[in-house]
Amino acid sequence: MSQDLANRIVDKMFDNDWFSQWLGIERVLIEPGHCILRMKVRKEMLNGFGSTHGGITFSFADSALAFASNAHGRLSVALDCNISFPVAVKEGDVLTCEAKELSLTAKTGTYLIEVKNQKDQDVAFFKGTVYRTSKQWFPSDTNSE
Amino acid sequence: MSQDLANRIVDKMFDNDWFSQWLGIERVLIEPGHCILRMKVRKEMLNGFGSTHGGITFSFADSALAFASNAHGRLSVALDCNISFPVAVKEGDVLTCEAKELSLTAKTGTYLIEVKNQKDQDVAFFKGTVYRTSKQWFPSDTNSE
Amino acid sequence: MSQDLANRIVDKMFDNDWFSQWLGIERVLIEPGHCILRMKVRKEMLNGFGSTHGGITFSFADSALAFASNAHGRLSVALDCNISFPVAVKEGDVLTCEAKELSLTAKTGTYLIEVKNQKDQDVAFFKGTVYRTSKQWFPSDTNSE
Amino acid sequence: MSQDLANRIVDKMFDNDWFSQWLGIERVLIEPGHCILRMKVRKEMLNGFGSTHGGITFSFADSALAFASNAHGRLSVALDCNISFPVAVKEGDVLTCEAKELSLTAKTGTYLIEVKNQKDQDVAFFKGTVYRTSKQWFPSDTNSE
Repeated sequence: MSQDLANRIVDKMFDNDWFSQWLGIERVLIEPGHCILRMKVRKEMLNGFGSTHGGITFSFADSALAFASNAHGRLSVALDCNISFPVAVKEGDVLTCEAKELSLTAKTGTYLIEVKNQKDQDVAFFKGTVYRTSKQWFPSDTNSE
Repeated sequence: MSQDLANRIVDKMFDNDWFSQWLGIERVLIEPGHCILRMKVRKEMLNGFGSTHGGITFSFADSALAFASNAHGRLSVALDCNISFPVAVKEGDVLTCEAKELSLTAKTGTYLIEVKNQKDQDVAFFKGTVYRTSKQWFPSDTNSE
Repeated sequence: MSQDLANRIVDKMFDNDWFSQWLGIERVLIEPGHCILRMKVRKEMLNGFGSTHGGITFSFADSALAFASNAHGRLSVALDCNISFPVAVKEGDVLTCEAKELSLTAKTGTYLIEVKNQKDQDVAFFKGTVYRTSKQWFPSDTNSE
Repeated sequence: MSQDLANRIVDKMFDNDWFSQWLGIERVLIEPGHCILRMKVRKEMLNGFGSTHGGITFSFADSALAFASNAHGRLSVALDCNISFPVAVKEGDVLTCEAKELSLTAKTGTYLIEVKNQKDQDVAFFKGTVYRTSKQWFPSDTNSE
């Protein structure tokens, strides 16, 4: 039930999320408070060092934050995010990220998102806090949290 | 002299920075440790809420971090960045950001980047720390710091 | 009027803030959304490197965040904070910090707190976001924001 | 061997870490890149809300960051740290934290530190990045990393 709602919410988000579409994000797993995404780095995502622009990696993780937190049923927006970049990402790399819920209260949620490359190396760690508004994605689903 | 070097470095970075070009970033001011950039939000930069994807605003500020820190002469890479999003950014908004150097040591630099919209509202605050490698952008410029 | 309320709130907070008292924090300036504090580093504040424990500098800035944000009238609690440490702090150093309000919305506030030593060197930069509850410090003050 | 070195380093750090001693920190587990600590919240650690001052929780996690990262053998100092506070900590609470290494490169290390109370509730999430200097804690230990 909550799984079905999670899918409907993220489908609706993704259909209008032009930038996630531009990034070429694939949804591997969507659950309330949890998701796994994948994408491949293309040439137009590089920065002036010949590496992937940090904003690309951030955006990938930020989409995971949005999907995982909104999948609970309430519209939730990012307040504060931070990211560490231990290893450079290169053109052609296939990135996978997993968002895990660290905590969920009435008003906020905190998530850790780990981004790995195709060699299973950690390339970024993202921690983000969302504000959970009172607005439901599908108000008629009376059981949505 | 250092101003001239700053321009040469950022020109070289920007010419290969495909993602900053895709974003449509304009350079308003480039100085060692300081820069001002501008860009306009297009439809393909939106997320599933009809607002600008947080990754776009982050990327804009992250480019400012890269330009301001590298303009000192040494190749510098982002280690940790954090961003707060007080106000949503909409399609068509014209964003300006200014990177200011909070500190500069032998190994690291810390910057605050404020992002404003066309109404002069603060839409994001970004704080980032870079690691300053020993590699010079133009080794023949013996005076580069 | 709002200045008077700010003082009454921070007086009330400080009288029960045993840890700020242990730190020896002096209030130099208190205003809604703004404050300046001072403290001196004692031996019991040092870490295993002979420098000041990072938690001391964080605590000093975190008190500034609490005073500046609560001085508007509504009980406000820290959600996310980050700090960068460009320069080590030593025993006997006299620290001053200033909290400036970067943004204030109905639900959240974001602050930058700069910590300097007695030589006017920046020793830490702290950025924090608070959640503004609906609870008033002095409900009878009907004009409090 | 590396376990023995880890203990010697953290013993040496702790003996001079007056603030960790003031906090009443107990070392439950010390390993290279990993540690578990425990402490009890006393009245003088409270803030003006009757909760534990955020700086106390930060300090506890920051000590874990220092012990876990230095236990590899090289003197390592915090550059950037961030913390989220999902649940308030009260007087008398017994806190446990565990530092896990997210990544380790030649120059930097990134750690996640989870702080729980005696009810196993998450009360804080801390992510920190250290700069790894070239200075060894025990230079004669030629195998130390």
